[in-house]
Amino acid sequence: MLIVQKFGGTSVGNLDRIANVAKRVSESKKAGNDVVVVVSAMSGETNKLVGYAEHFSSNPSKAEMDMLLSSGERVTASLLSIALNEMGHSSVAMTGRKAGIITDTSHTKARIKKINPELMNSEIKDGKIIVVAGFQGVNSQGDITTLGRGGSDLSAVAIAGAIGADLCEIYTDVSGIYTTDPRIEPKAKKLNNISYDEMLELASLGAKVLQNRSVEMAKKLNVNLVTRTSFSYEEGTLITKEENIMEAPLVSGIALDKNQARISLMGVKDKPGIASDIFNKLAKAEVNIDVIIQNTAHDGTTNIDFTVPVSDLSEAKLVVDLFVENGDIKDDSYNEKICKVSVVGVGMKSHAGVAARAFSTMAEENININMISTSEIKVSMVIDEKYAELAVRSLHNAYELDK
Amino acid sequence: MLIVQKFGGTSVGNLDRIANVAKRVSESKKAGNDVVVVVSAMSGETNKLVGYAEHFSSNPSKAEMDMLLSSGERVTASLLSIALNEMGHSSVAMTGRKAGIITDTSHTKARIKKINPELMNSEIKDGKIIVVAGFQGVNSQGDITTLGRGGSDLSAVAIAGAIGADLCEIYTDVSGIYTTDPRIEPKAKKLNNISYDEMLELASLGAKVLQNRSVEMAKKLNVNLVTRTSFSYEEGTLITKEENIMEAPLVSGIALDKNQARISLMGVKDKPGIASDIFNKLAKAEVNIDVIIQNTAHDGTTNIDFTVPVSDLSEAKLVVDLFVENGDIKDDSYNEKICKVSVVGVGMKSHAGVAARAFSTMAEENININMISTSEIKVSMVIDEKYAELAVRSLHNAYELDK
Repeated sequence: MLIVQKFGGTSVGNLDRIANVAKRVSESKKAGNDVVVVVSAMSGETNKLVGYAEHFSSNPSKAEMDMLLSSGERVTASLLSIALNEMGHSSVAMTGRKAGIITDTSHTKARIKKINPELMNSEIKDGKIIVVAGFQGVNSQGDITTLGRGGSDLSAVAIAGAIGADLCEIYTDVSGIYTTDPRIEPKAKKLNNISYDEMLELASLGAKVLQNRSVEMAKKLNVNLVTRTSFSYEEGTLITKEENIMEAPLVSGIALDKNQARISLMGVKDKPGIASDIFNKLAKAEVNIDVIIQNTAHDGTTNIDFTVPVSDLSEAKLVVDLFVENGDIKDDSYNEKICKVSVVGVGMKSHAGVAARAFSTMAEENININMISTSEIKVSMVIDEKYAELAVRSLHNAYELDK
Repeated sequence: MLIVQKFGGTSVGNLDRIANVAKRVSESKKAGNDVVVVVSAMSGETNKLVGYAEHFSSNPSKAEMDMLLSSGERVTASLLSIALNEMGHSSVAMTGRKAGIITDTSHTKARIKKINPELMNSEIKDGKIIVVAGFQGVNSQGDITTLGRGGSDLSAVAIAGAIGADLCEIYTDVSGIYTTDPRIEPKAKKLNNISYDEMLELASLGAKVLQNRSVEMAKKLNVNLVTRTSFSYEEGTLITKEENIMEAPLVSGIALDKNQARISLMGVKDKPGIASDIFNKLAKAEVNIDVIIQNTAHDGTTNIDFTVPVSDLSEAKLVVDLFVENGDIKDDSYNEKICKVSVVGVGMKSHAGVAARAFSTMAEENININMISTSEIKVSMVIDEKYAELAVRSLHNAYELDK
């Protein structure tokens, strides 16, 4: 098999751990696989460098930040390659440039435009292990760029796509994707596999492991993604396309998002285009809207409720204030003490009654549902934050996810 | 003026010192100069990275070492550029690649082949301060290379040559070149200027400041080199071509080299080509020979004495042993308890009696001279190591270098 293995910051957090990674890579190679490794900076390094930069400027120049931050991954890649060569393998370390990773010109949050895999392919053909510094590429002017948060995962997935790898393993300190957060429900079970779409909906369950950007890219490039831990030989979770999963369960997991706030707009003037106007202005202010509900009051005005990430709340308020000032909205209120609980599963596409069971579970626990939104593979409910853990445990039990 | 300023590891050893360097650069720029800065890694960083590599291998792969070690200078360059931008300057950080530094393919000790200064020239024209990561370049395959010990100085001198800088300032923690080592003779005085050739002969006096490689390159490219300290505004020492120095003193300085060993070959067979054979084999073993004296004994055989750096001694012994075994040399002996004291000055070209004064000074102090070698601008004497400091002080006094 041709495998891309990505090791995150904690997996390469010190010299002993890098030695452990070398051992794992060596084992994969000896088992007959071709291996391309992608590494992050040693944990703490990137934060240290960011701290250095902030010593000099609260808004450091971005091209310089990219030159600065890209150094951490280079150190890890060089060291791992040295270790592999010492073990008798033929290994070569590559920067993002060398690996052919071409990005756009947005410094510190560049997007990968394409990968030129010729050099990697020829080194693989020569039997070499390739160790790529993650998180970085070069733009069309040849300047170093970095890919932003989760960038090394993106490097790994994009490389796996470009070289046609059979598997892209993402190693972290977490052993895989669970049916729900084990800190809330200790009976949570690790999933053997899950579809891209489920994973995207379960983002909160994979938040510590995988960013949605990486899952989206894996889906687009049809890369089989495995999340597993470098601290044991435990099997991880395969994230793949739905067709690859035999007998998908009805429900795969229960996600919880406490990072939401509810905005209520009361007495919104009943004139054409008003809702569109509000949400367009919110979009321009880069406020992410999640659940929206709307209903008409007795006086002919409308009430609109929606949720936004807590971090976008103050920005959203500024936009809403404008409409309140000019009288288009009579009153507004805000509630940060809410959360969103989601039941996710591709199985619900073909089975009725999944949503109904969620609602009745909430009813049995006397939990009031404030807002509901559904998609083909998801039922989300906005409830009081204080019921968050109870809701998760009840739903986990109702769908028998511990079985 | 167009000035290249190079700041060494101790000058950028921590964030406060980098801020201090930013201040100095800013002052040069505000005084109306165009400035290109070359920086080393923060002191300790390179050693730390070497230590990391040695954790994995006693002979780490060299391409990987270059990728590893080149990261330190990039960190410093990025941070300094961020600091300069924050101060209101328009500054741009460059890797060796970006600065157009092309080297040969010898990883970890590459030689600069050429510099493509087009980008630097256009940024200077736009009024920008350029901050270059020293010590690094790229080879013709586009791989990162490093320049070996003193590499950042070489970067600075080569860049100064390529962009036609008026001055190349090398900032360290030492304020300049002294007439002799002030730890031996507290009355040593800092030189205002010195010729390239004198500097090369006085290598030991500049050892902490400048490597001969850099002086040789400065001479070749006709770069005016200044060594000075970043810790005060004290003027440094200008190293320039002889023609630029009005009224060169008779003697510029007294150098001491304790790092020499004497090899004595007794009863060397008197056959044609024997000396040539011995020294050729020593050269092949990369043994550096310094002073050589030869004299014929009464029995028709020859005695040959020469000095080598202590670090080359064991290699030299291996070569000599071969000649002893086959009978071409009767006996050999070794003495590490010697040193070489040198009187250096371009002035002695046109003045007689300089060597004579050196010999009589030794005689007055009852110091026996074992070997003598002279060049146009230097008189070197090999003496017992125990007299090293006495000899230096007496000569310093004899040539009135404290005046």
